[in-house]
Amino acid sequence: MKKILLLGAGRSASSLIKYFLQNAPTENWQIRIGDIAVEHLQAALEPHSFAEAFVFDVHKAEQRAREVSQAEMVISLLPAVFHIEVAKECVKQGKNLITASYVTPAIQELHLEAQEKGITILMESGLDPGIDHMSAMDVIRRVQEQGGKITSFKSYTGGLVAPESDNNPWRYKFTWNPRNVVLAGQGTAKYIRNGEYKYIPNYQLFTRTDEFFVEGYGHFEGYANRDSLSYREPYGLQDIPTMLRGTLRRPGYCEAWNVFVQLGLTDDSYTLDGSERMTYRSFLEAFLPPATDPAQTIAQRLCKYAGIALNGEIMKKLVWLGLFEEKPVALANATPAQVLEKMLKERWTLAPGDKDMIVMQHLFKYELQAKQYGLVTSLVVLGDDEVQTAMAKTVGLPVGILAKLSLQGKINRKGVVIPIYPELYEPVLEELKQYGVNFVEKEEEK
Amino acid sequence: MKKILLLGAGRSASSLIKYFLQNAPTENWQIRIGDIAVEHLQAALEPHSFAEAFVFDVHKAEQRAREVSQAEMVISLLPAVFHIEVAKECVKQGKNLITASYVTPAIQELHLEAQEKGITILMESGLDPGIDHMSAMDVIRRVQEQGGKITSFKSYTGGLVAPESDNNPWRYKFTWNPRNVVLAGQGTAKYIRNGEYKYIPNYQLFTRTDEFFVEGYGHFEGYANRDSLSYREPYGLQDIPTMLRGTLRRPGYCEAWNVFVQLGLTDDSYTLDGSERMTYRSFLEAFLPPATDPAQTIAQRLCKYAGIALNGEIMKKLVWLGLFEEKPVALANATPAQVLEKMLKERWTLAPGDKDMIVMQHLFKYELQAKQYGLVTSLVVLGDDEVQTAMAKTVGLPVGILAKLSLQGKINRKGVVIPIYPELYEPVLEELKQYGVNFVEKEEEK
Repeated sequence: MKKILLLGAGRSASSLIKYFLQNAPTENWQIRIGDIAVEHLQAALEPHSFAEAFVFDVHKAEQRAREVSQAEMVISLLPAVFHIEVAKECVKQGKNLITASYVTPAIQELHLEAQEKGITILMESGLDPGIDHMSAMDVIRRVQEQGGKITSFKSYTGGLVAPESDNNPWRYKFTWNPRNVVLAGQGTAKYIRNGEYKYIPNYQLFTRTDEFFVEGYGHFEGYANRDSLSYREPYGLQDIPTMLRGTLRRPGYCEAWNVFVQLGLTDDSYTLDGSERMTYRSFLEAFLPPATDPAQTIAQRLCKYAGIALNGEIMKKLVWLGLFEEKPVALANATPAQVLEKMLKERWTLAPGDKDMIVMQHLFKYELQAKQYGLVTSLVVLGDDEVQTAMAKTVGLPVGILAKLSLQGKINRKGVVIPIYPELYEPVLEELKQYGVNFVEKEEEK
Repeated sequence: MKKILLLGAGRSASSLIKYFLQNAPTENWQIRIGDIAVEHLQAALEPHSFAEAFVFDVHKAEQRAREVSQAEMVISLLPAVFHIEVAKECVKQGKNLITASYVTPAIQELHLEAQEKGITILMESGLDPGIDHMSAMDVIRRVQEQGGKITSFKSYTGGLVAPESDNNPWRYKFTWNPRNVVLAGQGTAKYIRNGEYKYIPNYQLFTRTDEFFVEGYGHFEGYANRDSLSYREPYGLQDIPTMLRGTLRRPGYCEAWNVFVQLGLTDDSYTLDGSERMTYRSFLEAFLPPATDPAQTIAQRLCKYAGIALNGEIMKKLVWLGLFEEKPVALANATPAQVLEKMLKERWTLAPGDKDMIVMQHLFKYELQAKQYGLVTSLVVLGDDEVQTAMAKTVGLPVGILAKLSLQGKINRKGVVIPIYPELYEPVLEELKQYGVNFVEKEEEK
């Protein structure tokens, strides 16, 4: 029996748990699943003698050490901030670890010690980061092996709603952590274009979007992520003239979100006076310039301030959210971003039966034998239901497949590793196809 | 002989030193002036046996202690960050101290100890903070003594150029620390209006200006300061429905400065890649969206992005500054704000013969016996020359007068104090009139 310890069994763990249960009999796995709350797992695990859940508190060092000692390999889907304590324990006890989160400087510091212990701390193995790396490297490597040179790489990912659930004016619902969505775009975005660095201040991010088209799924728009450049080196694209990473939304989202930014509603750095007495309407009022004409409505004043049309699509979105309603915020000592998040949660929540959708698109340009080519690879994954969401599948399945490879002894790289190597991503991309996680490529000579 | 120790003899100290030299014979003062560089003082001090300069390094604790021990009272015009060490030494040795800088939490912590020692740490005794407090309290007290109630108080101050030196398109030159001018407006501005808190995000500050008129000096515009509210309590205006503090510029300045803000050029939080290879034109290019039409000039692209007219006043200002010039920035590892500051310094420097101007305006509304009144008090101070600037006069003279009052034993309040009490501000405002620092009041029944 090979013992797997999975820490963290929140929403994004459902597909990974399903994968483990499916593979456990043939792979001879014993799975222990620890989370602060495990009641929701009982029904799924009960029929299986090879899986059990237990209450796990990451803050208890002794429990952490005992559980890691009994496992052959550890998976952490805990909130990213807790990975470091788990990683230290794994290094100490010489156990392999996989997570779907970014390598932090603290994790990176464990690299040499992990190498000495002969273990693998496999990070960035989910969707974004994760599948983005694997699918990008798959193309980059093929182009380079042919003798080609990548001159431009733009990559966008979005967690959205499936077409059948795409039924509100924003064409958006929360399919993962709402706070992260509200706080997206807090820093200056930096990218490189034709060899020149470009900078976009956070308060202009949503005015500087690009347009995309995905066959069968229509149009999207993308805004730039904070840091587009740090993967140039791991991808082997040190001298690439153009590189940009971004986030996808449906067309119209960004110009409407920009109204919140221009008002100052996404600020999380200070608390509002008397937020407990506010309504969404008075919240808006606090950020609007004072009325100069008493005949003007608050909607007219917002339109004038933001430069938008009273009967236009943007106003339709804002009205639908309840921004003009005298509905109590009912939050004490809240930051503007927290009030905004609460308002959005009341309207952007997935309804029963709603399905989510993951869209990823890589746009490459490359030079091969003095000719210019363009290559677009697109991935669309739809959720099966509210549990087996597209987000859970795309985050959990690559982690599960990598765990299988590791337990089969097929991962030989040691230390802190991300899945940019063919021996890691090739089997993952191949097996993912069985689950409908499949990139469509479209190549064109230019 | 009463010994005064003046620490810090930079540009803003000239009028204070002149005041000390004028008053020393009758007041029986002996003045020691310490600064890191004192050569520029020799000519002025040489004829006077009662004044001497010495090289002072605030980082040398032993020198600091020795100098304070030999003085009866200490004045610090050092950069604000150094006041705390001087203040601690003064408290330790039981010596009175005056500065023109804000009370920091660290200074405030000395309050009880200073009271126990029976000394006065008199802070915020220059122009802004300083004359603003004194002149505001003078009005507030008079209204309240008549039984009136202040319902609105707006206060604006600006350091500008005198009309005769007002000869560039921005109607602005640096008359004090350029870095502070570039970094103005980095935080959310917060004020209160008709009993409602209002918030302006930093990137909208320069679009939300008010207009002012000062008899004989024409029109001005003002943008809100970060914190308009913390003086409600010291001013005795806890329940005032409307209060706003701001900064004055000449009309047109703010809409042009807003172009820098919208581009992201005022950001001081990260360094630019390859700033040492940049020109002002390529600096601008790094913040502009990529060209979509190759026939468009960089000026046309900026106009489109910022929504400004190619032949308008804003472009005139930007062109005049050299923003479109292929002139090397010549700064390594510079932040955007540092590059912008360098460009501005090349054009906004006072020329020989240039005079500066301080403008302050308080706008009050108050209720008295069921009638509504408006009262506007305005101050304009012009520099005499490049040494006796309006800035130096308005910062230095109130400090000097307060020092005189202290040495005459007329300041009885102990601890950390700001000049909001009549026994402090009345004699200061009275004596300031002799130096042309005189508020003009205009009252109207509404």
